[in-house]
Amino acid sequence: MKFKIAILGTGNVAWHLAPALEEAGHTITEIYARSLADAEKLTARLYTADAKDDLDFSESEAEIFILAVSDQAISEIADEIILPEESILVHTSGAVPLDVLGYSSATFTGIFYPLQTFSKERKIDFGDVPFLLESEDQAALQKLKKLAKSLSPNQYLIKSKDRMALHVAAVFASNFSNHMLRISEEVMARQGLDFEMLKPLIIETISKSLELGAKRAQTGPARRVDFNTLDAHYQFLNYNEQIAELYKLISQDIIDSY
Amino acid sequence: MKFKIAILGTGNVAWHLAPALEEAGHTITEIYARSLADAEKLTARLYTADAKDDLDFSESEAEIFILAVSDQAISEIADEIILPEESILVHTSGAVPLDVLGYSSATFTGIFYPLQTFSKERKIDFGDVPFLLESEDQAALQKLKKLAKSLSPNQYLIKSKDRMALHVAAVFASNFSNHMLRISEEVMARQGLDFEMLKPLIIETISKSLELGAKRAQTGPARRVDFNTLDAHYQFLNYNEQIAELYKLISQDIIDSY
Repeated sequence: MKFKIAILGTGNVAWHLAPALEEAGHTITEIYARSLADAEKLTARLYTADAKDDLDFSESEAEIFILAVSDQAISEIADEIILPEESILVHTSGAVPLDVLGYSSATFTGIFYPLQTFSKERKIDFGDVPFLLESEDQAALQKLKKLAKSLSPNQYLIKSKDRMALHVAAVFASNFSNHMLRISEEVMARQGLDFEMLKPLIIETISKSLELGAKRAQTGPARRVDFNTLDAHYQFLNYNEQIAELYKLISQDIIDSY
Repeated sequence: MKFKIAILGTGNVAWHLAPALEEAGHTITEIYARSLADAEKLTARLYTADAKDDLDFSESEAEIFILAVSDQAISEIADEIILPEESILVHTSGAVPLDVLGYSSATFTGIFYPLQTFSKERKIDFGDVPFLLESEDQAALQKLKKLAKSLSPNQYLIKSKDRMALHVAAVFASNFSNHMLRISEEVMARQGLDFEMLKPLIIETISKSLELGAKRAQTGPARRVDFNTLDAHYQFLNYNEQIAELYKLISQDIIDSY
């Protein structure tokens, strides 16, 4: 089943999703951005899409309208967009409930949330991306499932209340683990040490954690409740009070959780 | 160059290091543990090593003595061990300075620190492990380099003052990123959600971070300074004050670092 799809937004998700949908055989009819120049940057990567900077889609041939914009912009655009009959309006956010689309002119609404971290610099293999889907209309949900299935074998039906938990879990698993690497990079750089040294450790840490589960995989001074080392590290970090505080709080939480 | 080596300790590092040294062609002469039964569990994995529960090594044929014990036990054992002439005593810790070996009966002392996370359940490929080496004696250091090289192509000479920074960086990169996954697992489990959903995200996060650097790779609500989502997540986590506090502090640190 091939769809005609309009995409609103040109951020990291839209940037990767639009070409992937074309590759899967769907047609991208329009790309919307507030500035036409931005929309054109993305249509330049596509075969047939028109760039657009107004929200009147009453003449669009698309059936599915994907709102791949910032969380704040979702409700604004949903309230303003003019959609054709029988259209399905979805957003791609892990944090915004379905009902913010409720006042739109869409016949059906839903969520089409690719659970992945997107950056323009890195190509994403959508075959590995789980899609988290939601809609109150069964026929619309079936179409979203087919759309997701054309990109990836992994789809999950998730209610908005669970999607919040999932998004919090994703922030810890992705953004926060990445921030731990960021702090690590900075500790190394400050001392003039090569971060390359730590890469095998990082790769083994994550592989082990995914295999054994993080609880069994844990090692280190907090796991051993080695207060001498914990104190020495805390003192070492006294050049940055916030990082030292983070060190203490995360170590305490590790200790408390065994 | 093949060495005769005694190993003190039967923890995660000794457990993997001893057989790897044998595979590399060295001879393990003795395994020491406080309890003979523990030492025998490890000698059972080896060809020629004798189990031992006393610290008199005056008759040992080994030249290199590897202290792979807890940080607290290093100085105790170093003070008590009786070593033969021309012996090299090293420890494997990232956190303990070289000079704690200074009062031992060793002729030479050093550090032989494999920068990796070891758990008994998971086999380690030492070919990927960086070895961080230190000794004040050039001839001993050359021997440690040859020993490390027989296991891995990556050796670094690191002074004790830099090893502290490196260990702090390793705690953030490994133990703390693993703990972020732990919290994520628990948020998912509490809601009855399948953690499998998050695995592609975690793999992509770490791959991207190692490729682009963590600063450029960062995404998510803190990176976007999206206070609506940050507040919603903080409220969601109010069932666990410590985790909620962690959420706030890490998010703040992400915001402050751009």
